[in-house]
Amino acid sequence: MVPNTIPDTKKITSGEAYINSLRGRNLRVYLFGELVEEPLDHPMIRPSINAVAETYDLALREPELAAVISPLTNERISRFLHICESTDDLVLQNKMQRKLGQNTGTCFQRCVGMDALNSLHSVTFEMDEKNGTDYHSRFLDFLTAMHRQNAVISGAMTDVKGDRSLPPHQQEDPDMFVHISRWTEKGIFISGAKAHQTGCINSHWMLVMPTMRLGEKDKEYAVVGALPVDSQGITYIYGRQSCDKRSMEGGNLDVGNVKFSGQEAMVIFEDVFIPKEHVFMDGEYDFAALLVERFTTYHRRSYVCKSGVGDVLIGAAAAIAEMNGVAKASHIKDKLVQMTHLNETIYGTGIASSFQGFPTKSGCYLCDPMLSNVCKHHVTKMPYEIGRLSQDLAGGLMVTMPSEKELEDPKIGTILKKYLRGKAGIPTEDRMRMLRLIENMTLGRNAVGYLTESLHGAGSPQSQRIQIGRMMQLEYKKRLAKILAGIEMKDNKDVLAIELAGYFSRVFKIN
Amino acid sequence: MVPNTIPDTKKITSGEAYINSLRGRNLRVYLFGELVEEPLDHPMIRPSINAVAETYDLALREPELAAVISPLTNERISRFLHICESTDDLVLQNKMQRKLGQNTGTCFQRCVGMDALNSLHSVTFEMDEKNGTDYHSRFLDFLTAMHRQNAVISGAMTDVKGDRSLPPHQQEDPDMFVHISRWTEKGIFISGAKAHQTGCINSHWMLVMPTMRLGEKDKEYAVVGALPVDSQGITYIYGRQSCDKRSMEGGNLDVGNVKFSGQEAMVIFEDVFIPKEHVFMDGEYDFAALLVERFTTYHRRSYVCKSGVGDVLIGAAAAIAEMNGVAKASHIKDKLVQMTHLNETIYGTGIASSFQGFPTKSGCYLCDPMLSNVCKHHVTKMPYEIGRLSQDLAGGLMVTMPSEKELEDPKIGTILKKYLRGKAGIPTEDRMRMLRLIENMTLGRNAVGYLTESLHGAGSPQSQRIQIGRMMQLEYKKRLAKILAGIEMKDNKDVLAIELAGYFSRVFKIN
Amino acid sequence: MVPNTIPDTKKITSGEAYINSLRGRNLRVYLFGELVEEPLDHPMIRPSINAVAETYDLALREPELAAVISPLTNERISRFLHICESTDDLVLQNKMQRKLGQNTGTCFQRCVGMDALNSLHSVTFEMDEKNGTDYHSRFLDFLTAMHRQNAVISGAMTDVKGDRSLPPHQQEDPDMFVHISRWTEKGIFISGAKAHQTGCINSHWMLVMPTMRLGEKDKEYAVVGALPVDSQGITYIYGRQSCDKRSMEGGNLDVGNVKFSGQEAMVIFEDVFIPKEHVFMDGEYDFAALLVERFTTYHRRSYVCKSGVGDVLIGAAAAIAEMNGVAKASHIKDKLVQMTHLNETIYGTGIASSFQGFPTKSGCYLCDPMLSNVCKHHVTKMPYEIGRLSQDLAGGLMVTMPSEKELEDPKIGTILKKYLRGKAGIPTEDRMRMLRLIENMTLGRNAVGYLTESLHGAGSPQSQRIQIGRMMQLEYKKRLAKILAGIEMKDNKDVLAIELAGYFSRVFKIN
Amino acid sequence: MVPNTIPDTKKITSGEAYINSLRGRNLRVYLFGELVEEPLDHPMIRPSINAVAETYDLALREPELAAVISPLTNERISRFLHICESTDDLVLQNKMQRKLGQNTGTCFQRCVGMDALNSLHSVTFEMDEKNGTDYHSRFLDFLTAMHRQNAVISGAMTDVKGDRSLPPHQQEDPDMFVHISRWTEKGIFISGAKAHQTGCINSHWMLVMPTMRLGEKDKEYAVVGALPVDSQGITYIYGRQSCDKRSMEGGNLDVGNVKFSGQEAMVIFEDVFIPKEHVFMDGEYDFAALLVERFTTYHRRSYVCKSGVGDVLIGAAAAIAEMNGVAKASHIKDKLVQMTHLNETIYGTGIASSFQGFPTKSGCYLCDPMLSNVCKHHVTKMPYEIGRLSQDLAGGLMVTMPSEKELEDPKIGTILKKYLRGKAGIPTEDRMRMLRLIENMTLGRNAVGYLTESLHGAGSPQSQRIQIGRMMQLEYKKRLAKILAGIEMKDNKDVLAIELAGYFSRVFKIN
Repeated sequence: MVPNTIPDTKKITSGEAYINSLRGRNLRVYLFGELVEEPLDHPMIRPSINAVAETYDLALREPELAAVISPLTNERISRFLHICESTDDLVLQNKMQRKLGQNTGTCFQRCVGMDALNSLHSVTFEMDEKNGTDYHSRFLDFLTAMHRQNAVISGAMTDVKGDRSLPPHQQEDPDMFVHISRWTEKGIFISGAKAHQTGCINSHWMLVMPTMRLGEKDKEYAVVGALPVDSQGITYIYGRQSCDKRSMEGGNLDVGNVKFSGQEAMVIFEDVFIPKEHVFMDGEYDFAALLVERFTTYHRRSYVCKSGVGDVLIGAAAAIAEMNGVAKASHIKDKLVQMTHLNETIYGTGIASSFQGFPTKSGCYLCDPMLSNVCKHHVTKMPYEIGRLSQDLAGGLMVTMPSEKELEDPKIGTILKKYLRGKAGIPTEDRMRMLRLIENMTLGRNAVGYLTESLHGAGSPQSQRIQIGRMMQLEYKKRLAKILAGIEMKDNKDVLAIELAGYFSRVFKIN
Repeated sequence: MVPNTIPDTKKITSGEAYINSLRGRNLRVYLFGELVEEPLDHPMIRPSINAVAETYDLALREPELAAVISPLTNERISRFLHICESTDDLVLQNKMQRKLGQNTGTCFQRCVGMDALNSLHSVTFEMDEKNGTDYHSRFLDFLTAMHRQNAVISGAMTDVKGDRSLPPHQQEDPDMFVHISRWTEKGIFISGAKAHQTGCINSHWMLVMPTMRLGEKDKEYAVVGALPVDSQGITYIYGRQSCDKRSMEGGNLDVGNVKFSGQEAMVIFEDVFIPKEHVFMDGEYDFAALLVERFTTYHRRSYVCKSGVGDVLIGAAAAIAEMNGVAKASHIKDKLVQMTHLNETIYGTGIASSFQGFPTKSGCYLCDPMLSNVCKHHVTKMPYEIGRLSQDLAGGLMVTMPSEKELEDPKIGTILKKYLRGKAGIPTEDRMRMLRLIENMTLGRNAVGYLTESLHGAGSPQSQRIQIGRMMQLEYKKRLAKILAGIEMKDNKDVLAIELAGYFSRVFKIN
Repeated sequence: MVPNTIPDTKKITSGEAYINSLRGRNLRVYLFGELVEEPLDHPMIRPSINAVAETYDLALREPELAAVISPLTNERISRFLHICESTDDLVLQNKMQRKLGQNTGTCFQRCVGMDALNSLHSVTFEMDEKNGTDYHSRFLDFLTAMHRQNAVISGAMTDVKGDRSLPPHQQEDPDMFVHISRWTEKGIFISGAKAHQTGCINSHWMLVMPTMRLGEKDKEYAVVGALPVDSQGITYIYGRQSCDKRSMEGGNLDVGNVKFSGQEAMVIFEDVFIPKEHVFMDGEYDFAALLVERFTTYHRRSYVCKSGVGDVLIGAAAAIAEMNGVAKASHIKDKLVQMTHLNETIYGTGIASSFQGFPTKSGCYLCDPMLSNVCKHHVTKMPYEIGRLSQDLAGGLMVTMPSEKELEDPKIGTILKKYLRGKAGIPTEDRMRMLRLIENMTLGRNAVGYLTESLHGAGSPQSQRIQIGRMMQLEYKKRLAKILAGIEMKDNKDVLAIELAGYFSRVFKIN
Repeated sequence: MVPNTIPDTKKITSGEAYINSLRGRNLRVYLFGELVEEPLDHPMIRPSINAVAETYDLALREPELAAVISPLTNERISRFLHICESTDDLVLQNKMQRKLGQNTGTCFQRCVGMDALNSLHSVTFEMDEKNGTDYHSRFLDFLTAMHRQNAVISGAMTDVKGDRSLPPHQQEDPDMFVHISRWTEKGIFISGAKAHQTGCINSHWMLVMPTMRLGEKDKEYAVVGALPVDSQGITYIYGRQSCDKRSMEGGNLDVGNVKFSGQEAMVIFEDVFIPKEHVFMDGEYDFAALLVERFTTYHRRSYVCKSGVGDVLIGAAAAIAEMNGVAKASHIKDKLVQMTHLNETIYGTGIASSFQGFPTKSGCYLCDPMLSNVCKHHVTKMPYEIGRLSQDLAGGLMVTMPSEKELEDPKIGTILKKYLRGKAGIPTEDRMRMLRLIENMTLGRNAVGYLTESLHGAGSPQSQRIQIGRMMQLEYKKRLAKILAGIEMKDNKDVLAIELAGYFSRVFKIN
């Protein structure tokens, strides 16, 4: 059984210290049908750990960007653990995300935790306000401990869901959504499974949360709790990625991005204990929707990270065009402009959402939900088009190029170097490396994060459309049109008042 | 000859006062081959004056949005005359622009002046700093006088250009660009013509500025000056708009938007005098490019106004769908969401540019140029798609509907009301009005502002692509890609340093 | 009462003869609240008549393209009256449509009639086959008479529809759909109204048809009949178009396209008689859907005409770029290529539908319905983008240019010619003409046909999506995927057999 | 040395016979740094052989589609070896291509050979006509022998190109383009390398051809010849594909498409002999451009195959939506319609090109080049969007799903089956298979063919834009616009005559 207080472990202050902190844990991780002895040493897993480590190293190199002084401990900690106290804080999250995207070319796996912490800050506060519970102070205690350790926290939200047309309590198998299986005096036990959990194995703690709006009969599904990732009863099944095995071939060219990758796994909970102190929701089904909405509002704007990954791909496209000797063609330049235009649109709509942030009751700042959804909706399309354009500039060789093993063969290697060279003076191997990087980001391991996760993470395209639809203030806009068209109106201010209530700070007033 | 000091006229504080201030001026305006006696009373011109008047009325209704306390006069004046002292000021410009777009459904014609004033604040300062001139204090004196009057100022930039492949001094006819034709002790005389001048006839003063980068031989084209719009030697030729004559038919339905429209005219200068006090550039050709760049940086983001016009069109589309009885069809709702997604993208990228503003040397804040260009580039496409979608929801009747005259005929009017009704309970006339509003905004008078001007105002699409291309920091991005691809680099920090110099505040640092 | 046989009038063999044939008819046409004395002489109507006249003149100049030898009369007649006897006939319809689009730059108004005749050929045959009626021979008699006269026939399909959520018989007012109001021994009387009837006033005869699938209780709405357009009881209310009054200003520049335009009107039927001989459906409600589907299958592919109009707009964009002196810029050339790519996509998908035609039971060839819908669906978008690109190349002057009246004023005319000139050697007036043509096609009169009608004619975008959805053979395609994925299947050949039945000739067989 | 006559081997009549025909050849193929002993038995190569085999099997099952009676041998042979004698032949190529795309979900590798044979038929004829050579009869002899064997022929066109800004003879290394290194009485020797050669290892013979327009100094690069793929002096280096090693893991689920894949390799020629009888161009540099243009005209339309692959992906998307339990959501159906609309646009523009074919001088039919380029240009974009939409319907599990090895573990397998199930009644394994198929087609092995090859095969996007630009008849279209705008013209029929000369049969005539 896990202890009900968090042991005072040493504060993690660098990528190296972080990596060391992961060694020797008692994790049950399955990969290719086998238990992984030490994830840290597994060549397919290690690059995903490196990406998280970079979040610590960036905080050392650029502390104003990637660190803050914790108001809870007065010590410098990662910005990923910080509760936003201003719109500046929201914006700096985005700038840090873009930078980390640039430095890793992949998903660095810490945004879910960051956005979950910020969501819980306000939601626990509002739950307590309504019900007289003490979740918020529990949460602050937990957060203080995390700040002390400067730990990595992941957020576990997406359930496996079973039959999507049924709510949790109507599922044939109650485990289709994570739920409380048992209450004791000291805490609760949970069961179920969470799908595609980003960076879970690379975290120290995880925050379990409900994945959708719940009703009265779904009470035991309304659970939020924090638990160490190596808690008893947890099993991880590692997700395959495109080209994942190239990391296990021993080379460093064909992988494309030798150092960094993302990570997703399925997490199975079999009667896992969470002590009361770490339970932040227990049956308040009527707050599930609010928590999900807060979280997605933050998280859909966190996809600004993809503009950082996009920077890498734009750079790769520009580099390969140069290596191919065609950098000056007007259509090449125009495609780079187009890629930039798309990439900056992601960035612009994302930071606009942050800039338009406003305080919630707990003091934690929330970003503009309309623009957050607009941003994420672009993210479901634009990286695909940026990816396509990068392949356009790369040329077909990207998918017909021989393996790096060929380079090592004296005869074949010489032939390849002779025939695959591009612009004079550029080593053929450099050209091959650049092509493999583009392959990595558009078809290979990091295409998972740059493309498919951009599509589905934080909600699939349709979920953004639903949210945009809810917030688009049609009654107000119809009124504008009717005034200009010269149509007389019975006053519908009441309708408008309802429409405007609560959704977002940027509502338009009725004249 | 105009006086070299500005007479102390009464401060304008309302739309009505503004309209009165225009009466009885000695303007030479040609329209349909004839001199217009009093523009104010011309049915085709009046709606454009109403749109400017609304900028005053909004300042009364929402002073925090559309007015400021002038730091020069300590009186409340229009935000359009204010020099931005913070990013908040930049952002509030955008919010005011969106609101005015919503309230008028057209171009309210004051952004060019606003953006010109802000550009000149920093550029005159930097000219003086380099050359020891006193343009900045002249400019401040002028600005103070304008604040006192709370006047409308337009900005005259776009020359007619003649052969676009030649610089001004190589043109066969020197008048293809406005230039100084004569210097006297008291001031200068200018000649030439400016094309498509927005709201010029509705302004009190205009600011003449060069339209492009100039060379040493173009010295006399490097001229900036302020002059009253009724200065001797100025002729206006009014521009036709689609469906403009409907305003002269006497009805109020077929016009679509009975109250508001935009205005553009050609302005001919024939030896027009500007006293020294109102000259803010006289030969400093090397600052022409900076002025143009500053101006377009502000102005490309000012196209956020189109998101306000877009709000009207989204409202009109929602209203007509309801009147047609199809508001609940899923494809209808989806199209409204799509229109909103596009519209908010314009808004989001625009305000992001403003939020990311930074101070220039004079203290005046400038917005982020990359995002400003990204915003305007979307504006060259998205209103067209929003317009198309609004026509989709309108139905074909929008372009086959009989004239409002038919409604007045007892027999035909009855037939029309019988056959053109949509959803029960909606008066047929209301449905016709809404269709005419959509026609007005997508084919008629206000399509000029919402579509074609969105395409070409503040620079045609290619000019944004050129600017985006200049600022896209490819060397920095190539470096990111090479690091991740495992390519060894000779250090190219020097190249990067050059790339990063000066362009914008948001540059990425080299790790 | 109209005669029950068609009088033997002279065969029309030229545009001039056609125009003369229209004079002196007893039509009741309302426009701007007044009865039009002679449509032929009305400056706003005449250009639409000219467009129809060009269909005759083209038949003289290029008989193989625009004429055929009638198999019914053995004389040369317009291809618009011909029943397709081969895929070549279908394809030649498209080639003639493109050519006429090129020659008129607008809608020449005869395709509805052509597609209605072809649809009725097979549907009357199949009705007779099932019910033992004699509609097909009646139809052939009527068609023979039309061939003899070489007349213009329009097709009247779109009802005004009232509450769109209700079928005809449930409408509060029975007149919302055209229906039989009375039966006599000699024929039937119809009442109701048809909306946006293309070219109705310029036709000799019209074919009234139901607009949608009908049920048993809609029997009296299941009516098809031919009647002269000047039949007693018919009233026309002329539809306004953007900038329509420019045709009445007396000039020839501001109109953009001085000679040609489209025409749409509302048609009101008040107890209009149709003799039995000209009734081709009377109560066969179960064939209404088939008729509509046949008609839209032909007609959605007839929108190939827009590629001809597009050719004009591409030419205008290329010409104005040249006149502006920028024809050689790479981005200009690229935009012309893009316009062509889009335009040829419309053409390509349209003629592919024709080429894949197949015979119906009556011998009349029908085009491929999937590709017909694919073609029309592109037409709802691509002309808008081509239009936008043409405005991009035109420049802002298109919407700020003074009126042609200004050119006539000695002083102002001289100023305009000086300042509005572009590339050396090009008369300013030519440049103005080209700008007005682009305005005409993208905002003015012919934008109605090129844009909004492209969106809604032959069914709005959603109607094509519904048809594409019906024909996309998902069961067959799921089977393909399952085979390749290695999924075992219970045999679902029965399901497939149903899916494949009847829809179109190009179905994929089950292996 | 290869014999100068082709030995009479047994005619290949089935997939099985084809596979057997490949065994035991003396090919030098490198893969992962090692010589492949027998390509046929290599698990990574075999699926690409299966795809070719399906071309034989389809010819057995649907002979009218995939076979013809050879006019040279009067025996039934593969349509891939047939010279088109009609537009029907061109269209049937497309229908066969779509069907094979449906059946294999990948590239079946025979179109290059087919299009090369058809191009050479007319080009050899026209060379002989001009120069009195006898290439055409040599070619016919060769073709007859191929018909007799019913062999697989690949076409080798794309050179490695070196510095792309230089013509072949100016390259530092002459081997950057394949060229004649030596002439003997009996024939020629060639050296150089061809990049990304589709299906080369799976062919019996290859046709070597120049890759671009050549000048007088490039004479020795103007070479066309046929040679057995196992000729002495040829080395193959196998190209890697995304996820290629999954074929070597031993399972059958994670591969996605267990049976079929594409193949590309680099081919190195080191003094390879071609006897005179098989040389079809030797120095006629002025015919290189014509050959390339003919070939790309055929080949860009051959990308209709991707609509067949698209059918599989649409089917997979529909199947996974059903398995996820969301098939009835309106946005799901709409996305399937959108995918179909795009897919049929590829098909429609491709077959339109074929239908508009016309005979060349040799009697061989050539397809319409404008529409061929329009088709291919869509292929460079639409499959990416179809792919994105398929991922949208798939859901994120596609990229986070555990490996098939997990399924075999008793405990983990049971957990997976419990938690990864979708709609009731669908085996979890089936759902996993369908997800892996979509991964295979959008990120994995077959994404190479469906996406990147769609982008670059038969010329990258810019090459189509150049061709479209050349054929767009701007002079003709400008003339149309000028006529309608009322601009007087000096007659420019001469210019037009030049523009119209030769390019394509579908030119518009001057009125």
